[in-house]
Amino acid sequence: MIENEFYSQQNVGPYEYYQVGEFELEEGGVIPQLQLAYRTYGTLNEQKTNAILVPTWFSGTSKNYESYIGPGRALDENEYFIIVVNQIGNGVSTSPHNSGSPIAMEAFPHIRIGDDVRAQYVLVTEKFGITELALVVGGSMGAQQTYEWAVRYPDMVKRAAPIAGTAKNTVHDFLFTQTLIDAITSDPGFKGGRYTSHTEVADGLGRHADIWAVMGLSTEFYQQELWRLFGVESVEQFTQGFLRPLFQSLDPNSLLTMAWKWQRGDVSRHTDGDLAAALNRITAKVFVMPIDEDMFFPVRDCAREQALIPNSELKVIESRLGHFGLFGAEDSYFEQVDCYLRELLASP
Amino acid sequence: MIENEFYSQQNVGPYEYYQVGEFELEEGGVIPQLQLAYRTYGTLNEQKTNAILVPTWFSGTSKNYESYIGPGRALDENEYFIIVVNQIGNGVSTSPHNSGSPIAMEAFPHIRIGDDVRAQYVLVTEKFGITELALVVGGSMGAQQTYEWAVRYPDMVKRAAPIAGTAKNTVHDFLFTQTLIDAITSDPGFKGGRYTSHTEVADGLGRHADIWAVMGLSTEFYQQELWRLFGVESVEQFTQGFLRPLFQSLDPNSLLTMAWKWQRGDVSRHTDGDLAAALNRITAKVFVMPIDEDMFFPVRDCAREQALIPNSELKVIESRLGHFGLFGAEDSYFEQVDCYLRELLASP
Repeated sequence: MIENEFYSQQNVGPYEYYQVGEFELEEGGVIPQLQLAYRTYGTLNEQKTNAILVPTWFSGTSKNYESYIGPGRALDENEYFIIVVNQIGNGVSTSPHNSGSPIAMEAFPHIRIGDDVRAQYVLVTEKFGITELALVVGGSMGAQQTYEWAVRYPDMVKRAAPIAGTAKNTVHDFLFTQTLIDAITSDPGFKGGRYTSHTEVADGLGRHADIWAVMGLSTEFYQQELWRLFGVESVEQFTQGFLRPLFQSLDPNSLLTMAWKWQRGDVSRHTDGDLAAALNRITAKVFVMPIDEDMFFPVRDCAREQALIPNSELKVIESRLGHFGLFGAEDSYFEQVDCYLRELLASP
Repeated sequence: MIENEFYSQQNVGPYEYYQVGEFELEEGGVIPQLQLAYRTYGTLNEQKTNAILVPTWFSGTSKNYESYIGPGRALDENEYFIIVVNQIGNGVSTSPHNSGSPIAMEAFPHIRIGDDVRAQYVLVTEKFGITELALVVGGSMGAQQTYEWAVRYPDMVKRAAPIAGTAKNTVHDFLFTQTLIDAITSDPGFKGGRYTSHTEVADGLGRHADIWAVMGLSTEFYQQELWRLFGVESVEQFTQGFLRPLFQSLDPNSLLTMAWKWQRGDVSRHTDGDLAAALNRITAKVFVMPIDEDMFFPVRDCAREQALIPNSELKVIESRLGHFGLFGAEDSYFEQVDCYLRELLASP
């Protein structure tokens, strides 16, 4: 167990824990005492029909969705019971750095998107007694989990909104994620995952951040100096003063656990590799919501999948921030997201 | 001096050397005995009006342009006298690994695109007595040199065709190139540039290649399995069996010399940072030729510059190979390049 203040209640809370207990993994191995950290907004109605589930993205926590939720928003806590759940390995839920033997640090087992969704299913059904989700919505790896929910538990998911993510990860995306992984593991301070503090891997985490600076945004982001949206005065302040410190505060093994999982997100595992068959299982009304400037979940990849989902529409979000549009630094981003989610939630 | 067979006559030749002699650099410092490696095709006519200059791209050599030149092609050696010149630091012309003290290896000075073009000017005028270039054409860093030629020596350049490159490097492109640099310099085997063989930096060069795999091609390249165009049977063979060995055979300090230069390509250095004023100097007829799927020299960045060049047209090359379309693995690429260059060469 390593102390890392980033994941504290004070920094990314409030959150509560749910004890899933012993949890068998798709890749083999067991988490002896899986706990999911989650945060709820609003109240579950008596019929238990107003629940919305929101899974987290790579490097993110439940904190990231605060700006997506509020009175008067599409995700309105006065109308819905919203559960934001931290994915396994994200540093808040059970993760390498907060686990003891036999799954501490470099010994942490491989996790699949399917593991997350099965664990979330336990949370949703056993903790809250929910058998129907009005909506599953999430960005990036949250979109991967959203797709997995819709394919794995079609009877339970009424609506789904995968934002800036795919049902089956692409080869290009796999290669991109590998560069993020290698930036960390190539740091001598990483020591095969046996560092004693994440600060020993600052160089690798910094290079990891630098690759995000290239792929996470867009060429127009820099042309138009949109780093100003992050409250900085220069591109150096954005990369050196914002992105690097952000990623350098995270746990390396945690990022690697998520990255491995991200690379292999694939709902066609349910149908012997037949993606069309997997997506055809979905009964939810689905809005597929890519971001137009996304460099690694491009619109055309998302549109290909959308075409295979029976009751679906493609809703492209415009954001010159590219994938990091998800951070919600622009009002126009939330205007579009809220508009689409309202329409989706209003559909039968 | 380090032996590296990659740059040998046998591998990337034939080429000849021109001794430029002592050469002062824009960033300060001197190359005591600068030599440029070049290759010519065809015969200079009596009026010396049929010369075409072709500068090399990052990591490339004069060998790379063999597939651009030939009888019946736009760059027809039966009609034109074509000089393909290796940029300074590319491993063939004067470079860190083939220089002795005081500029060997890590002591090699910073080179600017302007240094290349001034050295090439000496070659063209003093060796060949040429005072007019029918065309300057080059891809990527070759495009940067092409722009520099057209701005620095406007009276000498009749036509210019920058392919997949910009006159002023963008911030996004700078950040991308930095990840390529850091992949090499972060390898403990790099030893601050004082390795005794490039093979000691194989890990860093491999990660450098892996970043190219993400940014050098396109998402469609992988979706459509276009690695097959490179004669391989799987994406692993493309990345592990082609890209990694390719970059791992190169000299790390050479790549770093070129990368530093690439990051700072900027014709507005001639006009106190005023890009419009610099491009307005150009009297050549210019075809600006970006590649539609290029991830770091996107069409819109090139189009912005084209709009500032008086006698110019935007000619977009379609290639799902993205930036690596330059390698010419598709017939359709050369059909477009030849078509545009023929039109340009036919213009007054």
